[in-house]
Amino acid sequence: MNFEYKEPLLVQEVASRDGLQIETQWVETADKIALIDGLSACGFTRIEAGSFVSPKAIPALRDGDAVFNGIARREGVIYVALVPKVKGAERALAANADELNLVMSASQTHNRANMRMSCELSLAGFGDIVRLVDGIQHAKVSLNATVATAFGCPFEGRIDEDRVVSIARAYREMGIAGITLADTTGMANPRQVARLVSRVLEHVSAADLTLHFHNTRGLGLANVLAAYDAGARRFDAALGGLGGCPFAPGASGNICTEDLVNMCDEMGIPTGVDLQKLIALSRTLPALVGHEVSGQVAKAGRNCDLHPVPEYVLTI
Amino acid sequence: MNFEYKEPLLVQEVASRDGLQIETQWVETADKIALIDGLSACGFTRIEAGSFVSPKAIPALRDGDAVFNGIARREGVIYVALVPKVKGAERALAANADELNLVMSASQTHNRANMRMSCELSLAGFGDIVRLVDGIQHAKVSLNATVATAFGCPFEGRIDEDRVVSIARAYREMGIAGITLADTTGMANPRQVARLVSRVLEHVSAADLTLHFHNTRGLGLANVLAAYDAGARRFDAALGGLGGCPFAPGASGNICTEDLVNMCDEMGIPTGVDLQKLIALSRTLPALVGHEVSGQVAKAGRNCDLHPVPEYVLTI
Repeated sequence: MNFEYKEPLLVQEVASRDGLQIETQWVETADKIALIDGLSACGFTRIEAGSFVSPKAIPALRDGDAVFNGIARREGVIYVALVPKVKGAERALAANADELNLVMSASQTHNRANMRMSCELSLAGFGDIVRLVDGIQHAKVSLNATVATAFGCPFEGRIDEDRVVSIARAYREMGIAGITLADTTGMANPRQVARLVSRVLEHVSAADLTLHFHNTRGLGLANVLAAYDAGARRFDAALGGLGGCPFAPGASGNICTEDLVNMCDEMGIPTGVDLQKLIALSRTLPALVGHEVSGQVAKAGRNCDLHPVPEYVLTI
Repeated sequence: MNFEYKEPLLVQEVASRDGLQIETQWVETADKIALIDGLSACGFTRIEAGSFVSPKAIPALRDGDAVFNGIARREGVIYVALVPKVKGAERALAANADELNLVMSASQTHNRANMRMSCELSLAGFGDIVRLVDGIQHAKVSLNATVATAFGCPFEGRIDEDRVVSIARAYREMGIAGITLADTTGMANPRQVARLVSRVLEHVSAADLTLHFHNTRGLGLANVLAAYDAGARRFDAALGGLGGCPFAPGASGNICTEDLVNMCDEMGIPTGVDLQKLIALSRTLPALVGHEVSGQVAKAGRNCDLHPVPEYVLTI
């Protein structure tokens, strides 16, 4: 492990999309907007703010249009929308999303379970979205596509690494600049991460590659470390560690943003995020979603938040 | 990070000592014995089975003698006892502990808070214990000493690395073979871990050095990875992630044994531990301690524990 370099690590905040999408307690549109505006005030430059999917499929995010129209657009912040299909892309463009994030699983079974179509049909839909964006004159919107279950599938198990690399290359050949490798149900391990990141970086620059880890089996930050060490510089994370996967019941969710930022702060890796503000924002989550969240740093505080010395110690 | 080597990683199980010591619900002696015997059946070769401290200080472990006398000694397993003072050492020897683990904090304030004495007095007490063991003919007991708060103190903050190295050297010069560096309240980060482990390995062989991490700020397994990469091979961990520190309220505990073993299994690093048995044992913990525990793998299952494919998928 090379601990000399201290290149910046870019955190894309996904609490308002991947975090909230499985919550059963309805979060008011105004509260979603306040969360996103709170995140941009912490210093994030990329926020996945919502998704444009069928309200039947993900009722928790059915107000994507109102959310995108309500947020205070902060200069320099890219507001991303998840759009699996062309219909969602049209809505996202109408709502002035800065970037569209398309998603397909490397696993056929997971894609059928999640998107209700084959990978081939998903890819054909991506082509439609690329053509839609290309057809808009002066469109400033950028494109990213996610390879879900890139490190393992809860139905199929291991995923062939060649398949993940070839999907990433196919995305690029379609004209999609950004690539995300997603460990959708937390099956990745650091050795696998280092290997796959190295392979994908032969085809995609570090500036265009995002890693999306879940902490389902407690390995989230270890995987970030391995990916960073292998050259990755962009990571998804969700405030409080919100999120999860309906096909992996009982598991914890996305890697926790404040735990990741704390790790970077302690290691001297710049993120541009204000950890103290972030912790304060995270502490509002339990009231918002109606349950405790899995993040640690919001409970334990930063290292520099020292505890008072017990009185009896002074007499020893 | 060098991901080619796959040298074995030795896990010392500390659930029955560091895990149980802060539990408020009384765990019956027979249940403690069953837990320890369950652990030795999973393949652990080192188990910190209990402590011999004042029953007023740690009432949860007041039955250390009965526990040591009740366990089924499995051949090849070293049963360790935590003994901060000479009186405890006498009790541990009478109970046939295989190894004594002494403990002092690198931080004067933490040592006064935890041990109610200065570091100088703690070290003098260690000398008494070394002489006690030396004075017993044919004594087969081995000695280990822990540097607590080696990576940070909740009262003092940063700990000077030179001080940690010099304490480790002082332990060795007293005739104590084993050294543990403990991140008592989870303040370590991977960069610091790599640096300090490298420095201490100049004075202590990897076979004699143990790392003890807490997951207080979510960095436990990332720190294991950094330490392993720097040459460390022995790690403490507690079933279910039990434990914690009274001076770091709200925080989670020791790194979770089954999460660590799962990481090693997935990375191809041998531990000699049966993960499936271990998960089954961990799932008995909530009933034993009266609350949910923080470990992830016992909730999510192993990667190879696949989920059934939803019926609707077959029609797509």
